Amino acid sequence: MSQQIEIKPVKVGIIGLGTVGGGVVKILQEHHDDFLRDQGVDIQLIAAASSDPAEAERLGITDIFSTDGYNVINNPDVDIIIELVGGTGIAKEFIFAAVEAGKRVVTANKAIMATSGHELLALAGSKGLEVAFEASVGGGIPIIGALRNSLIGNRIESVMGIVNGTTNYMLTRMGESGLDYDTALKEAQDKGFAEANPSADVEGADAAAKIAILTTLAYNTEVILDQVPTEGITELSPVDLENAKAMGKVIKLLGIANRTPEGIDMRVHPTMLPADHALASVNGVMNAIFVVGDAVGDTMFYGAGAGSGPAASAVVGDLIEVAQRLTYDITRPFIRFGTEDAPLKPLDDVVCGYYLRLPVPDKAGVVAATAQVFADNNVSIKSMVQDDAQDGTAQLIYVTHPTREKDIQATLAGIEAAGVLASAPVFIRIED
Amino acid sequence: MSQQIEIKPVKVGIIGLGTVGGGVVKILQEHHDDFLRDQGVDIQLIAAASSDPAEAERLGITDIFSTDGYNVINNPDVDIIIELVGGTGIAKEFIFAAVEAGKRVVTANKAIMATSGHELLALAGSKGLEVAFEASVGGGIPIIGALRNSLIGNRIESVMGIVNGTTNYMLTRMGESGLDYDTALKEAQDKGFAEANPSADVEGADAAAKIAILTTLAYNTEVILDQVPTEGITELSPVDLENAKAMGKVIKLLGIANRTPEGIDMRVHPTMLPADHALASVNGVMNAIFVVGDAVGDTMFYGAGAGSGPAASAVVGDLIEVAQRLTYDITRPFIRFGTEDAPLKPLDDVVCGYYLRLPVPDKAGVVAATAQVFADNNVSIKSMVQDDAQDGTAQLIYVTHPTREKDIQATLAGIEAAGVLASAPVFIRIED
Repeated sequence: MSQQIEIKPVKVGIIGLGTVGGGVVKILQEHHDDFLRDQGVDIQLIAAASSDPAEAERLGITDIFSTDGYNVINNPDVDIIIELVGGTGIAKEFIFAAVEAGKRVVTANKAIMATSGHELLALAGSKGLEVAFEASVGGGIPIIGALRNSLIGNRIESVMGIVNGTTNYMLTRMGESGLDYDTALKEAQDKGFAEANPSADVEGADAAAKIAILTTLAYNTEVILDQVPTEGITELSPVDLENAKAMGKVIKLLGIANRTPEGIDMRVHPTMLPADHALASVNGVMNAIFVVGDAVGDTMFYGAGAGSGPAASAVVGDLIEVAQRLTYDITRPFIRFGTEDAPLKPLDDVVCGYYLRLPVPDKAGVVAATAQVFADNNVSIKSMVQDDAQDGTAQLIYVTHPTREKDIQATLAGIEAAGVLASAPVFIRIED
Repeated sequence: MSQQIEIKPVKVGIIGLGTVGGGVVKILQEHHDDFLRDQGVDIQLIAAASSDPAEAERLGITDIFSTDGYNVINNPDVDIIIELVGGTGIAKEFIFAAVEAGKRVVTANKAIMATSGHELLALAGSKGLEVAFEASVGGGIPIIGALRNSLIGNRIESVMGIVNGTTNYMLTRMGESGLDYDTALKEAQDKGFAEANPSADVEGADAAAKIAILTTLAYNTEVILDQVPTEGITELSPVDLENAKAMGKVIKLLGIANRTPEGIDMRVHPTMLPADHALASVNGVMNAIFVVGDAVGDTMFYGAGAGSGPAASAVVGDLIEVAQRLTYDITRPFIRFGTEDAPLKPLDDVVCGYYLRLPVPDKAGVVAATAQVFADNNVSIKSMVQDDAQDGTAQLIYVTHPTREKDIQATLAGIEAAGVLASAPVFIRIED
């Protein structure tokens, strides 16, 4: 019962033929007839560019290849451009030039969406074009589609996600096998889960870009990457993961965006979660985003957050939707991307429990001295444990009752000023 | 930066004001202005019907209320009808009459979608109308949207879901606390998680309707409820959940739809899953659908499968999308609902491991007699354990290597014919 209608081809150009780009090209090669039959679109890849001609050779597309992205953008036959260069350098020039040239754009570029997404979508909107970016967050997990479509009947109350596979892999291995940070990082690099320069992952910037995008969508408020208070996992030791376990918790690097009466509470940092929370069992390189809506209640979206296949799945999903709208002469009515301006709640005002690990010299009076600083700052201590000293250094593990961030920071500053620390303290926020 | 454009109201009628219908009306009352501002739709509820006027009074909508659904359907001003009566009786008449009358329809009716969905969508398609049914599977979990949109770049390889909250609650309690079946059912009924007549849930028909819908969407093949081989949980005992635990597994009532070279392998039955499978930790009344795509790999969608809020979230999400298309004069291009006709793989040909519990008299020779039947049918035994006898009855627990369903059925028939069973055997399929 196939439809017997004339289907106009949709002509596509792609810039960037690396892991994800190669995956996209392969899907388009293998599934062209499926998409024609099942989705009613005749997608023809007519132009491709990357800096490395060898990639085009491997994919068998040298006939449509150029090393200059502008040859794709300026090709008058191209309807839709897939941008998979990444970063905010030349990719940003390409993507804006593509929209200026009247092209629809599909991108996986989280950095652009988290810094210039508003300008980009405003420009596209003014020209009746669209920019699709499902692949920018959570790889193949359709969280952008869920927030933009399926969950729109909800007032979103909270978004909490494990949105960086590298750090989730490292924390999983540190927790399971007691690996130290450096060993876990080395292992992740050996397996191809971490880059040679891992700083964007381990310091939290990658997760921050994604939570900026999710915040923008969930609350339709204009936020950018630089506004996200961000801490990475570089200070964590296996002992912290062990202590978490003893408390019935796990440590995850979370991106958080909560609606509060004082504004949107948005941040990225290592977080202790109850071991029975749905996010707690998301391990290895997998990602998951936990969303609470006023009607739907708790939901979670789980999948591979990176890799050729998952990201390509998201890109092709977007491409088919855009191609359907082109084929059937449909404009997408609403792409709200941060058109309002909700207040942000300062990190200083966040209230939660805290875990503090203070490395101190193993001598009398240190517990009293540190406990006094908590008292001076009106921070209520829930528990204190002193681990057995090693090499003359003991670990004081404090857990607080719910406390304002500002007061815990003052406490930490007071303890540092008291001169009792043997090395830098570790502190981790606790979500219940 | 709100848009200053004239927005034409969309006029909505609702039939059915029970739990879900009441939830929908409340969302529309509370969020009208949010939807106007954020989604660009002015949704006006102008007609409502149910058999019970008290429901309309509670919701404060007596002015638009009628006890006759046809007053909603025949109201010429109504653009979209929300059908929440349920079942295939009068609801089916309403829903077809609504489409015949030129109305768009949003429904949560899994029974109609799983039995007459193809006719309904064909009729709607022929009139340029649409029928949206996100709420028919998985409550507020946006699995229909994911299969219809975000994941369309994938060839779906497998769909496996916990799609019935009642039975998942009962199995969770039987596993956690050793409750027997009757006690677990009573507890579920007391908490409002099971109906007075629980047969549609505990015998698997509810899950079968949902897996029929998911199969239709995932593989675009025409299947209906009656084609789903279905077993419920009524034969399970706490001892089976204990045995599963000892094997590092859990038991869940799963709806399964796998793509195989021999056709779609579709079924509903209790299943042993590895304890570290993502579905294994989905407990209580929560639902989750695990989808494997050739590009995206493993994904899972998790949330509350029933209840006023979640189902209403899905209905309102659909309603807003349909209303946006009406407001902006857009037709939805493609609603493929089983337009192809893929072969189904017969249950007899399914190959998996099996757990069999045989209650037998505690006397010599029974193990040998039963083992002989396995041998006669070429079924390879992986392990056999005999539990301590109670009241003269022992439990023989056999676990097989991967075996064809047909051979295990012949084995069971042979054992029954051998006259060694003290009561009915239990068998559970194992997924790895």
